[in-house]
Amino acid sequence: MKLGIVGLGLIGGSLGLDARALGHVVVGVSRKLSTCQRAISRGAVDDASVDLSILSTVDIVVLCTPLSDILTTTEKVLPFLPKTSILTDVGSVKAPIVAQMQALLIQANAQNPFVGGHPMAGTANAGIESAIPNLFRGNPYVLTPTSTTPDNAVAVVADLVRSLGANLYKCDPSTHDRAVALISHLPVMVSASLIQVCTAERDPLVRELAIQLASSGFRDTSRVGGGNPELGRLMAEFNTDALLASLHQYRSQLDRIIGQVEAGEWNALEARLVETQRDRPLYLKEHLKE
Amino acid sequence: MKLGIVGLGLIGGSLGLDARALGHVVVGVSRKLSTCQRAISRGAVDDASVDLSILSTVDIVVLCTPLSDILTTTEKVLPFLPKTSILTDVGSVKAPIVAQMQALLIQANAQNPFVGGHPMAGTANAGIESAIPNLFRGNPYVLTPTSTTPDNAVAVVADLVRSLGANLYKCDPSTHDRAVALISHLPVMVSASLIQVCTAERDPLVRELAIQLASSGFRDTSRVGGGNPELGRLMAEFNTDALLASLHQYRSQLDRIIGQVEAGEWNALEARLVETQRDRPLYLKEHLKE
Repeated sequence: MKLGIVGLGLIGGSLGLDARALGHVVVGVSRKLSTCQRAISRGAVDDASVDLSILSTVDIVVLCTPLSDILTTTEKVLPFLPKTSILTDVGSVKAPIVAQMQALLIQANAQNPFVGGHPMAGTANAGIESAIPNLFRGNPYVLTPTSTTPDNAVAVVADLVRSLGANLYKCDPSTHDRAVALISHLPVMVSASLIQVCTAERDPLVRELAIQLASSGFRDTSRVGGGNPELGRLMAEFNTDALLASLHQYRSQLDRIIGQVEAGEWNALEARLVETQRDRPLYLKEHLKE
Repeated sequence: MKLGIVGLGLIGGSLGLDARALGHVVVGVSRKLSTCQRAISRGAVDDASVDLSILSTVDIVVLCTPLSDILTTTEKVLPFLPKTSILTDVGSVKAPIVAQMQALLIQANAQNPFVGGHPMAGTANAGIESAIPNLFRGNPYVLTPTSTTPDNAVAVVADLVRSLGANLYKCDPSTHDRAVALISHLPVMVSASLIQVCTAERDPLVRELAIQLASSGFRDTSRVGGGNPELGRLMAEFNTDALLASLHQYRSQLDRIIGQVEAGEWNALEARLVETQRDRPLYLKEHLKE
């Protein structure tokens, strides 16, 4: 199979390394010539170019640009693709991407099928230099076909995902977005708010002592709130509805705790913490065990 | 110096190991004879007993019982102590303990000075079997003297704390309680609420996918919310005022984020996340670095 990878960063580059190791021919596209050259020399692609015509014979195109560039990039590459090639993306939000992509394809009168995808893999680094083999192995990879997505296109992308060693999940775009809002986007906002409370503490003695006394509990609870601000913004901008719903649900839970503390309902509070202690291990897969 | 340790668990036992290594004589008290015997055989104490008269010649008594037992334990041991021996505790909340302890000592017409203390050290384990040497080394240890605490008593306890290799901080009880509310007690409630939102998700497809997709971000943000429910309850029960103040401040910060997401103020949201990314490293000391 011949793969086209558009966007040669951590995800695109790592996908290229694995796809070539699996025997596929891989061509890459980047806006920067230097990135194309580095992708070739790192072995992430067989060939790469800033010229989109390099995609003219691919079977499948994987859009690995940032979330905010997926649609404009698709508009640009579409005229260069074979009519039968399959499009898929790696964006972390699916419902708006899938809907707008389907509209774009109809508007362009293109026959290419599109299968939304989201590999839940990454490292703290970005760019072609951080691309590594087996990035997807053992990690979830969600595909979000809709009722209009051709089955054979889904099967081709699903086979590719499985061949990477990823754990394949299929669901509709909205289910995906609500799930990642809960376990990925909401935690960023919850964690960021915690850091802001400490920064906003008005008593300088308390603030300074808090800084000195903060330990592993604060470190862990605040980690994702201290992460990449641009990613946090994109989560909110693209997954607005699901994030807002989870934020409102979160505020309700928080208000219940505040109510229990205000009323001195210590047994009820402890019962709640017994529940959270009981439920948390559900979310810890083998590779996440502490 | 002769130390009495009341309560031979993780903290009491670890303190005994270090104090004996420093050349002090250490006697211990536990309600359980088996714990006394284990403390002796582990070398955490020179002698131990369920009989409080073992404390009749100590220079300093360290109350290492759970927070909820500190005052009732003090009432029991007070009649057995030399009139000049210094009392100190290791409770994680200070203002109510210090106030009630001072009232108790006046009521009992006791001359013994009391110096509130809180070693910020621990492991995931409890009990005499988990006691380890150097538990306090490199960790904060807060003393909370008041205007009526004799300077020489503070000096004696401070010397002991420094000799353990701990980082000594002195502040008033309320400053301590507000600081630990921010960096220790608030994170528990914030983190527990996150787990509860996921558990309370009504769509079973979304809930199940969230469980499957949860990764290191969710693991870390939810860690302290999945901890010991009894400790969480005690934090709230004893540090109610400071915790409530921090919870209300937290809700204000959360509401600002919700407002920005609702209004689509993406630049303002990103600016907020730039601040939290900038501020978080303040709270990460060398040994907490990731």
